Amino acid sequence: MTTVPSAMREAVDAAKARVSALHAELPRWELVVWTAGNVSERVRGVDGHPDLLVIKPSGVAYDDLTPEEIVVCDLDGTLIEGERSPSSDTAAHAYVYAHMPHVGGVVHTHSTYATAWAARGEEIPCVLTMMGDEFGGPIPVGPFAIIGDDSIGRGIVATLEGHRSPAVLMQNHGPFTIGKDAKSAVKAAVLLEEVARTVHISRQLGDPLPIPQDAIDSLYNRYQNVYGQH
Amino acid sequence: MTTVPSAMREAVDAAKARVSALHAELPRWELVVWTAGNVSERVRGVDGHPDLLVIKPSGVAYDDLTPEEIVVCDLDGTLIEGERSPSSDTAAHAYVYAHMPHVGGVVHTHSTYATAWAARGEEIPCVLTMMGDEFGGPIPVGPFAIIGDDSIGRGIVATLEGHRSPAVLMQNHGPFTIGKDAKSAVKAAVLLEEVARTVHISRQLGDPLPIPQDAIDSLYNRYQNVYGQH
Amino acid sequence: MTTVPSAMREAVDAAKARVSALHAELPRWELVVWTAGNVSERVRGVDGHPDLLVIKPSGVAYDDLTPEEIVVCDLDGTLIEGERSPSSDTAAHAYVYAHMPHVGGVVHTHSTYATAWAARGEEIPCVLTMMGDEFGGPIPVGPFAIIGDDSIGRGIVATLEGHRSPAVLMQNHGPFTIGKDAKSAVKAAVLLEEVARTVHISRQLGDPLPIPQDAIDSLYNRYQNVYGQH
Amino acid sequence: MTTVPSAMREAVDAAKARVSALHAELPRWELVVWTAGNVSERVRGVDGHPDLLVIKPSGVAYDDLTPEEIVVCDLDGTLIEGERSPSSDTAAHAYVYAHMPHVGGVVHTHSTYATAWAARGEEIPCVLTMMGDEFGGPIPVGPFAIIGDDSIGRGIVATLEGHRSPAVLMQNHGPFTIGKDAKSAVKAAVLLEEVARTVHISRQLGDPLPIPQDAIDSLYNRYQNVYGQH
Repeated sequence: MTTVPSAMREAVDAAKARVSALHAELPRWELVVWTAGNVSERVRGVDGHPDLLVIKPSGVAYDDLTPEEIVVCDLDGTLIEGERSPSSDTAAHAYVYAHMPHVGGVVHTHSTYATAWAARGEEIPCVLTMMGDEFGGPIPVGPFAIIGDDSIGRGIVATLEGHRSPAVLMQNHGPFTIGKDAKSAVKAAVLLEEVARTVHISRQLGDPLPIPQDAIDSLYNRYQNVYGQH
Repeated sequence: MTTVPSAMREAVDAAKARVSALHAELPRWELVVWTAGNVSERVRGVDGHPDLLVIKPSGVAYDDLTPEEIVVCDLDGTLIEGERSPSSDTAAHAYVYAHMPHVGGVVHTHSTYATAWAARGEEIPCVLTMMGDEFGGPIPVGPFAIIGDDSIGRGIVATLEGHRSPAVLMQNHGPFTIGKDAKSAVKAAVLLEEVARTVHISRQLGDPLPIPQDAIDSLYNRYQNVYGQH
Repeated sequence: MTTVPSAMREAVDAAKARVSALHAELPRWELVVWTAGNVSERVRGVDGHPDLLVIKPSGVAYDDLTPEEIVVCDLDGTLIEGERSPSSDTAAHAYVYAHMPHVGGVVHTHSTYATAWAARGEEIPCVLTMMGDEFGGPIPVGPFAIIGDDSIGRGIVATLEGHRSPAVLMQNHGPFTIGKDAKSAVKAAVLLEEVARTVHISRQLGDPLPIPQDAIDSLYNRYQNVYGQH
Repeated sequence: MTTVPSAMREAVDAAKARVSALHAELPRWELVVWTAGNVSERVRGVDGHPDLLVIKPSGVAYDDLTPEEIVVCDLDGTLIEGERSPSSDTAAHAYVYAHMPHVGGVVHTHSTYATAWAARGEEIPCVLTMMGDEFGGPIPVGPFAIIGDDSIGRGIVATLEGHRSPAVLMQNHGPFTIGKDAKSAVKAAVLLEEVARTVHISRQLGDPLPIPQDAIDSLYNRYQNVYGQH
């Protein structure tokens, strides 16, 4: 495929608009500095065409981002449409979409507190009811992996497959979050940083109290059944 | 009751406008992320009608909130008016109004530093003159309780009844604050996070000096007699 | 005196405008929450009239403050002009003006990091060249004192008299800063919080390196001779 | 030389506009308070004229800065054009341009976390992939030096010559960053503060995991070859 199929044009343009607007949430919630961080969304294929993804181009300032600048790639990470190069993290996003069919959105940031846990390679324990609601348990750590092959994507998928948490802390690197769509993945990125910060601060002066597993299960099951309503 | 009595219409609409505007104070003072947090206000019944409460609907972004979207419930937490579901914390607010007749406003947040103390189940000691003024002593901790029955509401009331502090740290969860009206409860939420942060930071490098009980009493009594003027 | 002398009208109105505008610097630099904090400026007497001071009224939100709302008091702290009560900290400001003739501006905040040092009753050591420039040494601690008599004002004056620092940390309370005018005192309040934060953070992971006294003297003398130019 | 050569006028004015606009990034990313901090850019000489530099004047508020107020100096730090005095840090900037011909931009701030490391005289270890990308290893510390001779400039050059890092932490003082132009130096200042904060926070609760040297080399080499695209 070298162009966006006409049957997918409308869906691709709508996803570009959503993803462009959602990027504004990253600096707003102080999850990124300069041009770091990126949001992507899957566009499901129709008429036998394979799925595509839309993502931020590389090196563009948040203030300058428009829907027209969002680029389109296939699930190998190859550029299909766009005047600029896709984000250098595109291969990791593409790998997730290719291997986790239920995922519709992916977000990557270097948000400060989540990255601080990631630098120690330490999972965030579930000591807040808000973590039970959204993450259903601790936030897991993924392996050390650097750009150059598919090792980041493989590390994300291996860590999140079969885990309740929509967030993974890639060691020495930073968090990736997933969701049913880009907005859900952005929400997970925002709440992840908040719980990473709160648990960090709590631990600075002692040990946070654990939440019993059955209470975590109860919080998670209730919250997921009223998703989008809190 | 299934609708707002006409004799209470004007008061309900005024409360909706106040509560909608006060929600803007929560992100402004960085007490909430995403759609978390909620403010409510009691509307006192007239002509034999029982009291009502107005509160934020569930899952609405702060930017999108308007007075028309604020919902009305009775003091059992049942929806009386509004197109969206009430906040999932409505039962806790309603329980407080039903059992603490002098309370006119309730605020719930997951503000970072207050929640960090709550995660350790540790009260905040009174080591700032500003705490003496507004809280009259330490900020107490309430029990661990999860959504599903009235245990959160009971925990708030049991902790705050007979206590000077208008704020309680619900264990592993976050703070609730009360006031004579919604604005007073919002003020208490803002000042709570400030003292939670300041005392945390002070304790990181040593032990804050205690304030003698008679000085706390003096600060509290003076401040409460010039309420609204500082 | 019960009114502003006509010979001082123009100077008083100019001071009101300056002080009203300078209050916006307090939330901008995150030195205050809600309605806390206040800025005042001395208006020197002419034609045999005694000096006056202008200050923020009590309990007014920062967004709502206008030059017309700034109140005028004599150096006993008695209200001379204004529809609202003067800030409850007016007596402390007035005492400083009455006893330190070279002081033209006073600022009081509860800025977080400065107040955290104040809660431990611990001076901030001079370990930053920026502290040498602006403060000429460590930031001293003043005594514990509560509102009700002139003990806060006396504590400020006793600590700052003969000291290079334009800032004092009142124990368990918060900082007061002074300057040749209100703008200088606001600048000192902003820089104080910045050095309180930086030295706190530095000390969290070890011991900051001391600066030799002769280097501190050299920084201070150079900076004060090019005042207003940095 | 006492005036800007006409052959350099256009280049000087373009640099003034760029540098004026880039100053807005400093408060935006919370790297400075009040009037602290400065950005400069080299203007390369033509027709046998020596290089010049443009820099912020001393003591001007960020809100008030315009391209017309940016001043021009030669590489001895002598004022060539401008109504105000150049920043008191101009001698340090000029020394860097005079001794590091490949440097086109210099930034100085007192950003909080970077300055906290500088106050301890401790380099920031390379424990984040983002540090490998941008800095290629740890952030080094430069000597203690105070304004008055060329010791600050010499310290910066001696530390950064032959080092991958475009950032140096001047002991007890704060960071200087360099780049091929002013924008690159500002980017380095922003990323420096972010890594200084993240590594600080990570170390508060344990030891961040080191990144193997070959992985750092790989990150650095890839990133520098796709400069401006991330």
